[in-house]
Amino acid sequence: MLLSLKTYICSNLKHTTLKMNHKQDTPLANHHISVDCVIVGFDGEQLKVLLLKRTFKEGDTETQDMKLPGDLIYQDENLDDAANRVLTEQAGIKRMSTVQFKAYGSRNRTDKERDIKWLENTANIKVERIVTIAYIALVKIPANASSFKVDGNELCWEPVVSLPDLAFDHNRIVGEALIHIRQMVTNDPIYMFHLLPHKFTALQLRTLFERIYGKTFDVRNFQKKLKQMKYVTPLEEYEKNVAHRAARFYRLDKVEYNRLRKLGLE
Amino acid sequence: MLLSLKTYICSNLKHTTLKMNHKQDTPLANHHISVDCVIVGFDGEQLKVLLLKRTFKEGDTETQDMKLPGDLIYQDENLDDAANRVLTEQAGIKRMSTVQFKAYGSRNRTDKERDIKWLENTANIKVERIVTIAYIALVKIPANASSFKVDGNELCWEPVVSLPDLAFDHNRIVGEALIHIRQMVTNDPIYMFHLLPHKFTALQLRTLFERIYGKTFDVRNFQKKLKQMKYVTPLEEYEKNVAHRAARFYRLDKVEYNRLRKLGLE
Repeated sequence: MLLSLKTYICSNLKHTTLKMNHKQDTPLANHHISVDCVIVGFDGEQLKVLLLKRTFKEGDTETQDMKLPGDLIYQDENLDDAANRVLTEQAGIKRMSTVQFKAYGSRNRTDKERDIKWLENTANIKVERIVTIAYIALVKIPANASSFKVDGNELCWEPVVSLPDLAFDHNRIVGEALIHIRQMVTNDPIYMFHLLPHKFTALQLRTLFERIYGKTFDVRNFQKKLKQMKYVTPLEEYEKNVAHRAARFYRLDKVEYNRLRKLGLE
Repeated sequence: MLLSLKTYICSNLKHTTLKMNHKQDTPLANHHISVDCVIVGFDGEQLKVLLLKRTFKEGDTETQDMKLPGDLIYQDENLDDAANRVLTEQAGIKRMSTVQFKAYGSRNRTDKERDIKWLENTANIKVERIVTIAYIALVKIPANASSFKVDGNELCWEPVVSLPDLAFDHNRIVGEALIHIRQMVTNDPIYMFHLLPHKFTALQLRTLFERIYGKTFDVRNFQKKLKQMKYVTPLEEYEKNVAHRAARFYRLDKVEYNRLRKLGLE
């Protein structure tokens, strides 16, 4: 039995007290709060999300599945600080800006048997319900980083179009994060460049547009679009050691971007 | 003493248990969760927010201030359901769509003396920290509805540009809600028409644009803009009993709006 007697009695006393105090005969919610981070990257081909491997027992056999990096928050911790702690502790990412996008608090989001067991094993507490505040972080995927370890935890980049069955409601959270990222990029295109390397080709930029908006762009039309983006500067640098015709590199001109943005952009 | 001994012991036991169980020497957060509703309306002149009057004691004198309609959620209540309950119970608004826009969980958002006392008096529990999930609802302000009562509670519409010092962090929540409403309208102009009467004049629409975007629009330019909005239909109806030249009425053509929206709008 994982629960101490103290916790058990405490949790029952609490409900009784609340029930008696409140005008309606229903206990108030007094639950755990967590943050979950949807860390999205782009490898030049696909949008990928960073997932943490989770080990749990199913009967006598040990199984693995995946979850978003995330954690319960501490008593004195602000939500944004908790998201940044998770990025650092669980994904090894420091000083990354995060965007809070939605709270998930459905009663049944912690109902799956394997999630209940895992919570009891790792947090060592009986969690009845967890309201999670979901964050987005857009990052550049380092070369050869399809999987790696941080503090003993295994992490891997998985394409967002073919995710396995994740823990809790994390498939839903990733799906809604992608819709939110599309809105973020539409409102403020700078977010797209968080996903690209410092120097990028027109093909990379077009592919990224296609992945974010979920549709294909005609090459000629995209070249026109690219010329209209006055804040994307063509460089006198070209790809090296490639089998096809070497493509030109471009980069974001942040000063010009901010100037145009102040004028109201396009 | 408002806290029962049971609650007091329980809360201390809980923290001790968590402290021992967790890998770090800091208790996990296990807090109350609330929803707060920023109900915004437009009276033809100003954007206004619906506020609830709150009575509390300061020394021996009873004082009043204002807060957003909001409440702690129940054990089995989903977040969206709680927001809708608050709209109905506290503002008398039924079947209104709400948009969740941000969670507020800073440790110091419940630190003000008058807020602590009020929480202890109304909820009859010692609330250490409340993470609140904030919702937006856009409504048409009924005529002559500057203040009214619902279930004994006094409510009033206050202009968003001149709000008094509200309870908790509700000034901040309203401020950020207005920025979010601007984004909502930019992404999907239909939200603007939630704020207008069924029939409206060009002046009303222009004034609403000016309030949402916080800048003035030239009359001629706005007439051009209005003509470009193919989903706004001019009617063969004009204002009656007005001192100035009677203005034409317009209305939203939802079918046309949805058709254009599918094509990608403008």
